[in-house]
Formats: sequence, structure tokens, C-alpha cells
Amino acid sequence: MFGCLVAGRLVQAAPQQVAEDKFVFDLPDYENINHVVVFMLGTLPFPEGMGGSVYFCYPDQSGMAVWQLLGFVTNEKPSAIFKISGLKSGKGSQHPFGAMNLPQTPTVAQIGISVELLESLAQQTPVASAAVSSVDSFTEFTQKMLDNFYNFASSFAVTQAQMTPNPSEAFIPANVVLKW
Amino acid sequence: MFGCLVAGRLVQAAPQQVAEDKFVFDLPDYENINHVVVFMLGTLPFPEGMGGSVYFCYPDQSGMAVWQLLGFVTNEKPSAIFKISGLKSGKGSQHPFGAMNLPQTPTVAQIGISVELLESLAQQTPVASAAVSSVDSFTEFTQKMLDNFYNFASSFAVTQAQMTPNPSEAFIPANVVLKW
Repeated sequence: MFGCLVAGRLVQAAPQQVAEDKFVFDLPDYENINHVVVFMLGTLPFPEGMGGSVYFCYPDQSGMAVWQLLGFVTNEKPSAIFKISGLKSGKGSQHPFGAMNLPQTPTVAQIGISVELLESLAQQTPVASAAVSSVDSFTEFTQKMLDNFYNFASSFAVTQAQMTPNPSEAFIPANVVLKW
Repeated sequence: MFGCLVAGRLVQAAPQQVAEDKFVFDLPDYENINHVVVFMLGTLPFPEGMGGSVYFCYPDQSGMAVWQLLGFVTNEKPSAIFKISGLKSGKGSQHPFGAMNLPQTPTVAQIGISVELLESLAQQTPVASAAVSSVDSFTEFTQKMLDNFYNFASSFAVTQAQMTPNPSEAFIPANVVLKW
């Protein structure tokens, strides 16, 4: 029913079914993974009114499984790309794999898919940093970074009257930074 | 041999084989596509010493096919994510699909895969904006952007001796920009 693809590696199309409605893919060497694609194979749709929540699970320093909600796949949106680099220091979230006690290996993470009611999915909030940026959100991100930079640089701004005499120090007019 | 997945849509695993060594996937409604995943199915590897160059093809305003090299898949790196939003205003590049005259429909683009010698692939340069940023390349990209910014801002840098008197204009010490 599901496939999983780590960018740069071979596709996986045979998850481990750990419960009637739960599927798990192993991600070996997960610390070298940036993006993961989760998709429906197209062989079998979700039952009507149902979809899948997609979780990333990795072992914390003590070997305990930390689960984070990446997002969803549904019959209407049967595939998604998630960015998992950057998630490894985040906190875990509520998840439906609690009782399963998947064996944790230090270098192996998991993608877990839980088949649930669409109404239930609609009440869950994925970690924001897992969304692969579209053009718009990338532009927004860049803009925010530059805004932060301007705020940062401006905090050092001085007028000529405030300058301590030092003829060799170079200064950049603040409006140049702003216009850029 | 190949699969193709548009983020958010169903996977395609049956390209049109337009020549012995050339495969094409149709991408309907391509103007609403951000990311495309191209991957080997794992059923059949490339012959030794060979790999695939991956092209994006879209119709320009006069309906002519414009081809752009996105990147490569090989036995060692059997999948890749490409960003195709943003490519639609770029120029075409040299490509090996020239004689095929694929029928162009205004809203349908193509992914073309050409099986070639690895040595030949090594001499081809994909369009930079198609690479989905890994952590490293994103950091590099950001660093380059900031380097560009520093070079840009520095070109406006003045020392106090060069300043025209204007006590209200704010200046940012250049080393603040550099340190950031």
C-alpha cells in the first residue's frame, strides 16, 4: 500500500506491518538523510473517510524512541516529501505507536504510518520544519532571514556624531542594507 | 526500470520508451508542480559504466519543447528530488531528445531520462536551481548569498574621512556585516 524513498537511495515498497493499521519503514544510517518521500503505491486506496499520518521515529541518546509527526498522505494527496534533517534535536509528540516498543538501533530511524479517520488527522499538527519548502515559503524564509539580519545589523548602527574617530574603519550606510 | 513521482500526486512507474535508451514521463498540469522525484525501481540496474541524465521538458509560448538538465540517477545514487518550479522561465540546454519531436500540449511537461555513459554524464552541468537543497548545499547557498551581500554592501563602504557631513544618516560598521 505504501512506498518510502530516501533521496539518493533505492525505493522501499515493503513496510513492516506492526498492527492492522500501522506500517513502519526502517531508515538505516538516518543521520545522513535529508529528505524522505512517502507515497501510496496506487494499488490500494485508503478506506473512505480515512488517511495516513506519517511519523518520523529516531532513538534519543538513551535509546528511547522519539516520534515526530511529519504530515499526512490521503487518497487526494497520495504522496509527500518531508525534510527530516534538522528534526533530530526536536521534542517528541503524541503518537499512536506507543505500545509497540520498536527495537531501537542507534543508527536506524523509522517512518511510521498510522491509518486513521480523516477527522482525527485534521486535529493533528505536524512539526513545521518537516514541510519541504515550496517556492513561496523559501522566499518567505529568505526574506525573514534578511529581516533578521537588518535588525541585527541596525542594532550596531551609529551616526557620524556618535563615531569614535577611527579613519580606517569601514562603514556601510544603513540604507544600503535596507535596500538590498 | 524508472519511477517518477510528483509531490502530492500518485507515483508513475510506466514511462513511455521513446528510444532504446530514452524514457519519458508526462507531467500534466505542470505549472502546479513544485518537486519531482525520479528513481530507479530497483528491478533492473544500469549496465556497468552507465547512468541516466534527467531532463525537464516544457512547452514555451510558441509550443516548442524547451529541455533543461535537472541532474542524474545512477546505480550508486538511484533516486533524486528535483525542484522544477522556477525553471519555467529559464533557457533550454543541449539535450539528446532533439529528433523526437514529442507532441507538446500547453499544460503538459515531461521528464526525460537518457541512458548514457557515466563519462558523458560527468561532462554535463545541470541547472543549479533544480537541486533540492541538502543541509550542506543549503548552508553553502546561504553562505554564498551572504558573501554576495557583503561584497555588495562593501562596495558602498566609506571610512569616516570620506563621509560627507550628515549627522542623521545611520552607518553600520562593516565588520558587523562580515561577522554576521
